[in-house]
Amino acid sequence: MSSPADQVNQVLEREAPALFASLSALGRQVVFPPDIPFQAAEARGKAFNATIGQITDGAGGAMALPSIKRALETLDDATRSQALLYSPVEGLPAVRRAWRDWQRRGVATSASSSLPVVVDGLTHGLSVVADMFGGENRRVIVPAPFWGNYRQTFATRTGATMVPTPVYRDGQFDVAVVGEALAASPAGEPAIVVLNFPSNPGGYSPTPEERDQLTADLVEAAEHRPLVVVCDDAYAGLVYDAAIPRTSLFWELIAAHPNLVPIKIDGATKEFSLFGGRVGFLTFGVDPESEVATVLESKIKCLVRATVGSPVALSQVILLQALQSPTAEEEVESIRQELQRRWEVLTAALSGVDRGLVEPLPCNSGCFALVRLSPDIHLGSDAMRKHLLATQDLGVIAIAPDFLRIAFCSVSTETLPELVERLKAGVDAARDAG
Amino acid sequence: MSSPADQVNQVLEREAPALFASLSALGRQVVFPPDIPFQAAEARGKAFNATIGQITDGAGGAMALPSIKRALETLDDATRSQALLYSPVEGLPAVRRAWRDWQRRGVATSASSSLPVVVDGLTHGLSVVADMFGGENRRVIVPAPFWGNYRQTFATRTGATMVPTPVYRDGQFDVAVVGEALAASPAGEPAIVVLNFPSNPGGYSPTPEERDQLTADLVEAAEHRPLVVVCDDAYAGLVYDAAIPRTSLFWELIAAHPNLVPIKIDGATKEFSLFGGRVGFLTFGVDPESEVATVLESKIKCLVRATVGSPVALSQVILLQALQSPTAEEEVESIRQELQRRWEVLTAALSGVDRGLVEPLPCNSGCFALVRLSPDIHLGSDAMRKHLLATQDLGVIAIAPDFLRIAFCSVSTETLPELVERLKAGVDAARDAG
Repeated sequence: MSSPADQVNQVLEREAPALFASLSALGRQVVFPPDIPFQAAEARGKAFNATIGQITDGAGGAMALPSIKRALETLDDATRSQALLYSPVEGLPAVRRAWRDWQRRGVATSASSSLPVVVDGLTHGLSVVADMFGGENRRVIVPAPFWGNYRQTFATRTGATMVPTPVYRDGQFDVAVVGEALAASPAGEPAIVVLNFPSNPGGYSPTPEERDQLTADLVEAAEHRPLVVVCDDAYAGLVYDAAIPRTSLFWELIAAHPNLVPIKIDGATKEFSLFGGRVGFLTFGVDPESEVATVLESKIKCLVRATVGSPVALSQVILLQALQSPTAEEEVESIRQELQRRWEVLTAALSGVDRGLVEPLPCNSGCFALVRLSPDIHLGSDAMRKHLLATQDLGVIAIAPDFLRIAFCSVSTETLPELVERLKAGVDAARDAG
Repeated sequence: MSSPADQVNQVLEREAPALFASLSALGRQVVFPPDIPFQAAEARGKAFNATIGQITDGAGGAMALPSIKRALETLDDATRSQALLYSPVEGLPAVRRAWRDWQRRGVATSASSSLPVVVDGLTHGLSVVADMFGGENRRVIVPAPFWGNYRQTFATRTGATMVPTPVYRDGQFDVAVVGEALAASPAGEPAIVVLNFPSNPGGYSPTPEERDQLTADLVEAAEHRPLVVVCDDAYAGLVYDAAIPRTSLFWELIAAHPNLVPIKIDGATKEFSLFGGRVGFLTFGVDPESEVATVLESKIKCLVRATVGSPVALSQVILLQALQSPTAEEEVESIRQELQRRWEVLTAALSGVDRGLVEPLPCNSGCFALVRLSPDIHLGSDAMRKHLLATQDLGVIAIAPDFLRIAFCSVSTETLPELVERLKAGVDAARDAG
C-alpha cells in the first residue's frame, strides 16, 4: 500500500508534472498528518468535543484573562504603534524581561537563565531548536505516547530520528524509561531528550521522587554523551495535585553536568490562555550577560529571521499588558482553578469505569487525560475514535495503537460526567460488537 | 580570517563544549547576519533614520488604518474568542476568502488561483516555499541587489544555491538578466526565480513592455526546465508612476506554460500597514477546487504545522475587520498617496545630486530608493553607512559593494530634503577625505 505522501505525490505527478519535478526532497515527503488538527476538524460540531488542547469555556468561547481583554480594548497610541510595527527579531525588550521575571517566580537566584528569545509560539521554538540541534540521524528520545507534531518538527524537517520510549508500564508513568533509552543509545553520540511536563497527551507531572530519579538518570547519561534536554513547558503551572511540584524541571537541570544542555520552551499560549496570539520563548540555562548567551541569541535570531522574519508584535504587546497587571498571578490562578474543578470531576468519573473497557492512566496536571483501551476491545484507537464520533456525538483524539486523549480543557465541568458515560457506552457497544 | 560563524562557534567550543558538540550542521552555520535588522539597530535614535522598511509617520509612529484601529478597540465577545483561540492551520476561512477577493480586484475571472493559505508573515511564506522547492544545490535566480533574507531563507536553511544576477546596467533596471541567468543554467534542471515588484531595495516595478519581455523570457526558459517563479508581492499596490501597472506579474504567469509554476506570496504587512501582525498568504495559480490545490494545501499545512503550529489568529481577526470595511480600499489608497508624496519629494531631491557623489537608480514604487556610490568615492557602502551614522546622524542600509538604500516609507515628507542634503554632505566629505 502506498504511503499518504506517495498518494498525494501521484496526483501532482499526473496533474502538475513540472511542479512535481520542482519539489525538494522535503517537499516530496510532506503531507498534512492525520493527527490532532485533522482529527479535531473531523470532530467540529459534535456535542461532546474533547479534541482540542486549548482552554475554553466548554462552549467554544475563549477564557480570556481580564487583563488581556482590557488590553485589547484600551491600547493607547504609543502602545498601538508598537503593536502594529515590527518587533525586534529577538522580541520586544520589555516582554523578554517581564517573561523572565514570570518564569523565575520562586526560582533560586543562583540558577542562571538567559533573557528569553521570543518566537511565534511554542512550536516555532521547537522547530528552531530542531534546526539548531537536530539534523540527519540525531536521536530524539521522547516518552511515548507523545505529541505527534514533535515528529514533523524534528524528524520530517531535519532528518532526526525519533526514539519513542513507551512510558506507561503496568498502568504507571515510569520515568526510568528515559535513562534506559539513553543507555541503549550509541555511546558518545550527542542526543536530544524532549520532556513535556505537564504532559501531552497524558496530563502527567512527576512526583518529587520521580524528578530526582529523572535528574539523576540524565546526569548519569551526560557522562557518556553531550545531551540536549528540551523542557517543553507548554502547560507550565497547570498542576492539580498538591503533592506535585509546579516548577519546571529545567531549573534543576541547569549546571547539573557539563555535558547536559537544558533548554526551556514556554509561552503565553496556555499559561496566559492566549492560544491565537503565538508568543513563545526560548531560554537557555546560561547567564544572560555571558558570551555564550550572546552567541546563542545570534544563532537563534538568524533562524527566527530565516523562518518568520520577526515575531508577532501585536500579541507581544497584549501579553505585556497582562504581565504588567498587578493581578496577573490571580488571573492565571483562576483559570488553573477552573481546570482543577474539571480535572476532579473527570478523574472521579473515569475512576469508576470498568477496566474491561478502558484503563485511565495517571493524570495530575495539564489539559488532558489519557485512557487506554482494554486488551478485550478489538478495535484500534482510530477506529474507536470514528465509532465514538458516529454513535456518541463524541470527539476525542486517537493515538496509536490503543490510546484515547480527552481534552478536558475545552469541555465544561457539567458536561464531563455525560462525556464519560458516552465514552463507556461507545466502547461497551464496540466490545459487544467485537 | 575566520567567518562570523567560525568566530561565534569558537566561543561555544571553548565555553560550552557539549552544546557545541550537539549543534546540527545548520546550527553550526547560523549567525545573525549584519543586514537590515542589524544595521537598523545601529541606527536607532538617529535624527535621520531611513533604515527600516516599515511605513511610519516619520516619527516612529505606526500609520494605522482607521479600520484596524477601530477593530482593536471594538472586538465583540465572539470575535475576541476567535482572536484568542487557535486558528485552523490553513488560516481562518473568512480571512482566506476575503484575501482572495482582495488579491483578485481587477483580475480576469479566467485566471485560476487557489484559496490562499495563511502564514506568519511573508518571510514565513518564503521559508515554506523554500522548504517545498529549495534543497541542496537548487538554483535560486534573483535580480541583485536583493533583500538579504532570501539568502537565509533559501540557501542557509535548505542548501539551495543563490544565483544573484546584477540587474542594473548603465543605471537602468534591465529585466533581461533573468532570462540570461536561466539560459546559462544547466538545461533540464528545475530552477527557482524570485521576482519582487515593487522591488526591495530598488523601489522598481517594470513597465508594460518590460513585463511582456519578462513573461516571454520566463516562458522561453520554461521550455527547458521546470521553473518555479516566486512573486514576492510584499509591496503590492505601492506604485507612484501612473504609467506602471500595479497588479502582480503572478496573474500573467498563470497557465503561461506547462513547465512554469507561479507562486504568489503577499500579505497584510505592507498592504494593510500591519507590520507587527505577521499575516501572509501563499497562493498558487490553480483552481481552488482542483485536486492539485488540495494536495498543495496538505503539503503547505504540514510545513506550517511543523514550523509554527498554526498562524496567528489575533492578527487575522484584526485584518478581517479591515478587509470587511467598506472603506478598505480608500484607507489603503490614502497610505499609498502619503508615500507618493514622499517619493515625489525624494526623487526630486535625488535627481539634483552630483553624479560624482551618488547615482540614483530608477525608482517608481515601493518603500525604498536606491543609490549607487560613484566610482570616484573610494569607500565601500558599509564604511559609508558608518560614516553617515557618525557624521550626519543619518541611518541608511548598506548593500555591498556600493549601494545605499533609503527607506522613505519611514521618513516624513518634510524631512526628506534635509536627509538628501546630509547624504550629499556626508558622501562629499568622504570624497574629499579620500
